Amino acid sequence: MARPKNDTFLRALLREPVEYTPLWLMRQAGRYLPEYCETRKRAGSFLQLCKSPALACEVTLQPLARYDLDAAILFSDILTVPDAMGLGLYFAEGEGPKFERPLREEWAIRDLEAPDPNVHLRYVMDAVAEIRRALDNSVPLIGFSGSPFTLACYMVEGGGSDDFRTVKTMLYSRPDLLHRILKVNAEAVTSYLNAQIESGAQAVQIFDTWGGALSAAAYKEFSLQYMEQIVAGLKKTQDGERVPCIVFTKGGGQWLEDIAAIGCDAVGLDWTTDLAAARRRVGDKVALQGNLDPFSLFATPEAVAAEARRVLDSYGEGSGHVFNLGHGINQFTPPENVAVLVDTVHKHSRKN
Amino acid sequence: MARPKNDTFLRALLREPVEYTPLWLMRQAGRYLPEYCETRKRAGSFLQLCKSPALACEVTLQPLARYDLDAAILFSDILTVPDAMGLGLYFAEGEGPKFERPLREEWAIRDLEAPDPNVHLRYVMDAVAEIRRALDNSVPLIGFSGSPFTLACYMVEGGGSDDFRTVKTMLYSRPDLLHRILKVNAEAVTSYLNAQIESGAQAVQIFDTWGGALSAAAYKEFSLQYMEQIVAGLKKTQDGERVPCIVFTKGGGQWLEDIAAIGCDAVGLDWTTDLAAARRRVGDKVALQGNLDPFSLFATPEAVAAEARRVLDSYGEGSGHVFNLGHGINQFTPPENVAVLVDTVHKHSRKN
Repeated sequence: MARPKNDTFLRALLREPVEYTPLWLMRQAGRYLPEYCETRKRAGSFLQLCKSPALACEVTLQPLARYDLDAAILFSDILTVPDAMGLGLYFAEGEGPKFERPLREEWAIRDLEAPDPNVHLRYVMDAVAEIRRALDNSVPLIGFSGSPFTLACYMVEGGGSDDFRTVKTMLYSRPDLLHRILKVNAEAVTSYLNAQIESGAQAVQIFDTWGGALSAAAYKEFSLQYMEQIVAGLKKTQDGERVPCIVFTKGGGQWLEDIAAIGCDAVGLDWTTDLAAARRRVGDKVALQGNLDPFSLFATPEAVAAEARRVLDSYGEGSGHVFNLGHGINQFTPPENVAVLVDTVHKHSRKN
Repeated sequence: MARPKNDTFLRALLREPVEYTPLWLMRQAGRYLPEYCETRKRAGSFLQLCKSPALACEVTLQPLARYDLDAAILFSDILTVPDAMGLGLYFAEGEGPKFERPLREEWAIRDLEAPDPNVHLRYVMDAVAEIRRALDNSVPLIGFSGSPFTLACYMVEGGGSDDFRTVKTMLYSRPDLLHRILKVNAEAVTSYLNAQIESGAQAVQIFDTWGGALSAAAYKEFSLQYMEQIVAGLKKTQDGERVPCIVFTKGGGQWLEDIAAIGCDAVGLDWTTDLAAARRRVGDKVALQGNLDPFSLFATPEAVAAEARRVLDSYGEGSGHVFNLGHGINQFTPPENVAVLVDTVHKHSRKN
């Protein structure tokens, strides 16, 4: 299996020479696209969309049909792993994800086990394989997972949270229990990502959406440590090709050097971090991914283009930059501004 | 007017020698205290509580009666200034602050004017004077205001926001309009804080609650620049005593050096910043305030004490540290854990 025809994204992650700065967008297959909303309606629910390999494949490809993106990302949810652990994921209308059985009791935590991804998450592997076939080696496919700490936040809180009061109470009062959850989550995420790689994922990203809610000390102990374990356990090549790994901690800009040291190929940055300073801080250690403010896409087309150029210029010349947003694209984003963004990134970076 | 009997807080802000690390807590007069809830009920509403100098004084003193805190902070709301500008502040039950007339139209932005604090915010100045009389020079009184950008977020959004979509759309599309609002806000905040100082505030803090939602470049242009203007315009002494100024940008840890350079005496830090690293970064330029995770107060008393000691030890020996939380105290915090915190901070820092 050769590298895809457009392998700019993979080369940028590995800091090999590129002709332009590649880009993809976190949550690029999503509600801002009318065609996505139609498929979702057809699926019946978000979860049924995730669990149908054919429909997951369909929505994965939708943004690539519209825009000249340099990578596809598996359409799935970050909570598939705890769902496969038996916590009972569901989505209450307009309320975000919830678990029927939040993980708080000591006995339940002791009983927690990593699921076999090829059995309990078969639908994800089937989607990966189907998307790879559909992509026909045009652009690389990114696999992904939530980080152990981010998964634990949802598992312990029983859903989303503004303040993470329950999981932080456990963190400070019963760190042993939280470490037990994180250990199982790290095992589960490692085998989940490896199964995605074996099914055809050509790069993987760990989404640490909530690590930034921790103190510096707690971040290292409860989030970064476990991501380091995962990175160490990942398959580094598949069919002779290197499979790069991206680690993205939202709100993690202060800990960039620490993240860059865990063995990943690239670090994702949210929009609060200055890319020029970030590049100086990591040197040649890792590639950087990011970091346009997703809400700059609500501005005029001229302002969108100006802000995209500012991000490109702050990284500067040379490889090692994958353009992205600093967080998932918002559901109310005007799709025509995404076209402006993609065009600007490609054109402006070719000039550099 | 002499310095208060306990002036440890003021001395720490000015990096003069202290016998122990002083502490106060953001939102220390608040819903976690049953006596506060009773006074609020008596007031009829939160806004009536803010607007009654006698009741504002009463709740300001409540945490000092319970705990051995080293400073009092004026009880008020950060949105008094835009309310005095005529935007019509109100609180819908369980919904947070709202404005009857959000500021979005160009004509309204052109018409915006800074209010005279001694006329339109007389009730705040009366509260400051009444609290000073009641404190009888026991501990210093802190005055405060929201930052120009934080006020603008509420003014443009019309209330709280998860994503600041409206204000960011203005920022990227019509920066001239946002700059016009920020210019008026900076004037208004300067005269508001100076009036508080003239009424008796012995230190002031600028709360930049939402500056951390901006990109590094936008933070400097739309938040920090205006706080620098305010700091330059503040009265530096009152009755021969120096009035220190603290700047707190939640989520601003990455920009610490920039904040420390605007002329303030101290920088407030949220819990995500490592205090030891922060101290190395600012050297002798400013004092530092913070930065316990407010949710560590939900843990066992032993864990609360351990986490407080960890924060103290990370700052290390010598003056220049004011202990605080990294954000306002949560309404569900067990009051008995606050007692453990205050006791631990005083005892442990005396040993150092």
